[in-house]
Amino acid sequence: MQLRVKKLNLSSGGPLIAVVNQDDARQLDIHALDRISIKNKHEIIAAVNIDSGKTVNSGEIGLFEEVVESLRVKSSEIITAKAAKRPLSIAYIKKKLDGEHLNEEEIREIVNDIVANNLSQIELTYFVAGCYSHGLDLDETATLTKAIGESGSRLRLGKKIIVDKHCIGGVANNRTSMIIVPIIAAAGLTIPKTSTRAITSAAGTADTMEVLAEVSLPLKKIESVVRKTNGCIIWGGTLDLASADDKLIRVEYPLSLDPRGILLASVLSKNVAVGTTHMLIDIPIGKGAKVDNKKDAIRLKRAFMSLGNILGIKVKCIITDGSQPIGNGIGPALEARDVMFILKRDSRRPMDLERKSVMMANIILKMARCKKDALDILDSGLAYKKMQEIIKMQGKNDGVELAKYNHEVRSNKNGIVREVNNKKIASIARIAGAPKDIKAGVYLEVHKGDRVRKGDILYTIYSESVKNLDDAVEASKNINAIKID
Amino acid sequence: MQLRVKKLNLSSGGPLIAVVNQDDARQLDIHALDRISIKNKHEIIAAVNIDSGKTVNSGEIGLFEEVVESLRVKSSEIITAKAAKRPLSIAYIKKKLDGEHLNEEEIREIVNDIVANNLSQIELTYFVAGCYSHGLDLDETATLTKAIGESGSRLRLGKKIIVDKHCIGGVANNRTSMIIVPIIAAAGLTIPKTSTRAITSAAGTADTMEVLAEVSLPLKKIESVVRKTNGCIIWGGTLDLASADDKLIRVEYPLSLDPRGILLASVLSKNVAVGTTHMLIDIPIGKGAKVDNKKDAIRLKRAFMSLGNILGIKVKCIITDGSQPIGNGIGPALEARDVMFILKRDSRRPMDLERKSVMMANIILKMARCKKDALDILDSGLAYKKMQEIIKMQGKNDGVELAKYNHEVRSNKNGIVREVNNKKIASIARIAGAPKDIKAGVYLEVHKGDRVRKGDILYTIYSESVKNLDDAVEASKNINAIKID
Repeated sequence: MQLRVKKLNLSSGGPLIAVVNQDDARQLDIHALDRISIKNKHEIIAAVNIDSGKTVNSGEIGLFEEVVESLRVKSSEIITAKAAKRPLSIAYIKKKLDGEHLNEEEIREIVNDIVANNLSQIELTYFVAGCYSHGLDLDETATLTKAIGESGSRLRLGKKIIVDKHCIGGVANNRTSMIIVPIIAAAGLTIPKTSTRAITSAAGTADTMEVLAEVSLPLKKIESVVRKTNGCIIWGGTLDLASADDKLIRVEYPLSLDPRGILLASVLSKNVAVGTTHMLIDIPIGKGAKVDNKKDAIRLKRAFMSLGNILGIKVKCIITDGSQPIGNGIGPALEARDVMFILKRDSRRPMDLERKSVMMANIILKMARCKKDALDILDSGLAYKKMQEIIKMQGKNDGVELAKYNHEVRSNKNGIVREVNNKKIASIARIAGAPKDIKAGVYLEVHKGDRVRKGDILYTIYSESVKNLDDAVEASKNINAIKID
Repeated sequence: MQLRVKKLNLSSGGPLIAVVNQDDARQLDIHALDRISIKNKHEIIAAVNIDSGKTVNSGEIGLFEEVVESLRVKSSEIITAKAAKRPLSIAYIKKKLDGEHLNEEEIREIVNDIVANNLSQIELTYFVAGCYSHGLDLDETATLTKAIGESGSRLRLGKKIIVDKHCIGGVANNRTSMIIVPIIAAAGLTIPKTSTRAITSAAGTADTMEVLAEVSLPLKKIESVVRKTNGCIIWGGTLDLASADDKLIRVEYPLSLDPRGILLASVLSKNVAVGTTHMLIDIPIGKGAKVDNKKDAIRLKRAFMSLGNILGIKVKCIITDGSQPIGNGIGPALEARDVMFILKRDSRRPMDLERKSVMMANIILKMARCKKDALDILDSGLAYKKMQEIIKMQGKNDGVELAKYNHEVRSNKNGIVREVNNKKIASIARIAGAPKDIKAGVYLEVHKGDRVRKGDILYTIYSESVKNLDDAVEASKNINAIKID
């Protein structure tokens, strides 16, 4: 059927979607969410939305931007549309939903179709639901990890040993990567660190590093940074490393699902893409952290180690205390300042973050059979020098500057700090404007176990906006982020 | 946050969707598929899509038609947007996906949110996936049926006995409803029949009835038709009877899922809505029919009877032969002609369809303790007269007229007809233009077991378009719809 292109000026955020009038859909014998092939000089397969005629008339085909770009069509151009078959991967998704085991070919087909935007969100959702309800066994998880890791861009560094560290997350600040990367790189090992931005927290490592340096770099540039300095700290989203992963995470979000197999694949697929050989995984346990009990932490540890074994990556896991923030600043600039305090050996440096970073760096050094000591590297100033090199190579940003406005929150009684709640502190920092306002956040003056007196400062809230500061102060009164008794 | 309305002139087909610029989304602390409350004089909760700025600028909010209509806003009007909580039902959907039992309150909450368009397709998909993977037990199924049946419009007839018949489907023609309704109505029993349009077949009962009469009637009109004539044959989609059902079917479609519990609820919820007291269900078995083996048919029969028992509906099931079309015409006008042949006692009437309809009508009469005989009612002309009454009351249409063009498909050998394939015959009829071209279709001259000679007509293809006729003739050569040996 010949149809006239109508550009909708709408983005689907990935999937190829075409809108067909209900009369034409009947002629073409297609239903909503079926596929059509659309052909001009190029040919693509798109998912179909049906319109009752309010936007797309009979004889027209409405195209989302992704389709316009793929086909390079103009408005009013005539294209040929016909019904197309469902992708093969849909049968495999159904198989998983039926509780059956998927083989390598089937999993690769699904991942390829995810990357190529051939699956709708409904179909992706069924895949996630199948993985969630029936689980993925070790073989399936390993195949999924490899398929995702090999599906996007890959870093080619040509090094025998490439190390990495990863934290399961949920603990405020905990910016160990930004200490460990310069230590390890200064020791001569290669550590290309990809990191994430905040989703529900006040800052991700990518947001924090961005205070100091550019984090969105093209692949070639990243390779040259790592070749020159041994390390980098970049935003993983800048690459299409493991791009299938982002799409799965998007459909997991509405139900806050985190199917074990997909979580494991999500973490290690990035390591497949960058060629990691040795890896340390931090699993913090605590209220509000992703893992809240030791049993789950141990199960996760075992799964990571078995999976690493199949993938040929040496994996070590540590289970750490995730019951309170590690470091004092919460918010991009405040966290970056903590990092620089430690690297510069400033007396204001948070010792909890330093101790944890040094401990982890030493484990990594030992795994890679490097005899150097992390604290020596820090104390000698070599880690600071290395960080400056990395910042320069990635592209220097303005650096740490605190927000214009601040407010000190004080204790209203004497006592001992019993809890500093990760989620609640992050929530106050977000209301103050973090992570978008990079200077906004919370600076903690106390930690669990500290003795405080009435009138002592518990934390300072920073914001670039008086309105946001007021809101955060108001929220801090209602949210009991620090418990004292 | 104050935002300026931008109408997108796009329909979501139900769900309330608003598009927010990524910068504003960050300020509002919302992610794609989160909810926002939008307030002018009215207030609604919509699901959020995030735009990178190509369509919706910072300071604007893009609204789908459904939102524009609910809020009655104008372009450039200023509304107040803020983050809203996820509906409670999402937690219950997750519970089902975790394999847990849902209680009445939880199921009703889910159904209410489906009807109110509060759930996204992803969330609905998770619900279907949960029901599919873990099943619904009898209690859950009964609650779901009642909740769906009570969620939309309801027919109020004030009758003690209301009968119905339903067929599980998959058999071409099989237009028993259009014979049974006038027989039963002529016998004095009330039978308000809602029927469906073709999805993958060449005609649904609604499409076939529409050849003779209007089938999209408002609720009050339907009530008056039934009060006057005892019966009706209308398109169920015209009402929002059991509207949650359509939305579930939509997300089942991409994977062709048909979770048992939802299938049962889908059928009987309509009976809850119209107040059915006695019901006959036809379960045809055969290649290409929805049920293809006796074991599944018996399991389905038991499930329907148990469910009917809980719902207070007397249910009887018959398992019938669904291995070939029943009746000769396939396509709206051709099927309507078969029906009228039977009602008018024309010698060209298809006896297989008559026998099945009479047998079923007699079971229904017996269930309702009516002593009349179906064949007597047919032979006396009372059923024909009743059908004319119903047609007149619903609004008479043009009636049966066959297509301009036709082509006879002949046997190329002597032998016995071994198979008349439902799906293949339907497929040829669809290529010829059915059901959109109501005069198009296939008229069968032979049935299973018939002896044919080379050159005998097997079937005639009808179409209003030469092009479609050619395509159907071409397809008939490749599709071996009738097997002879």
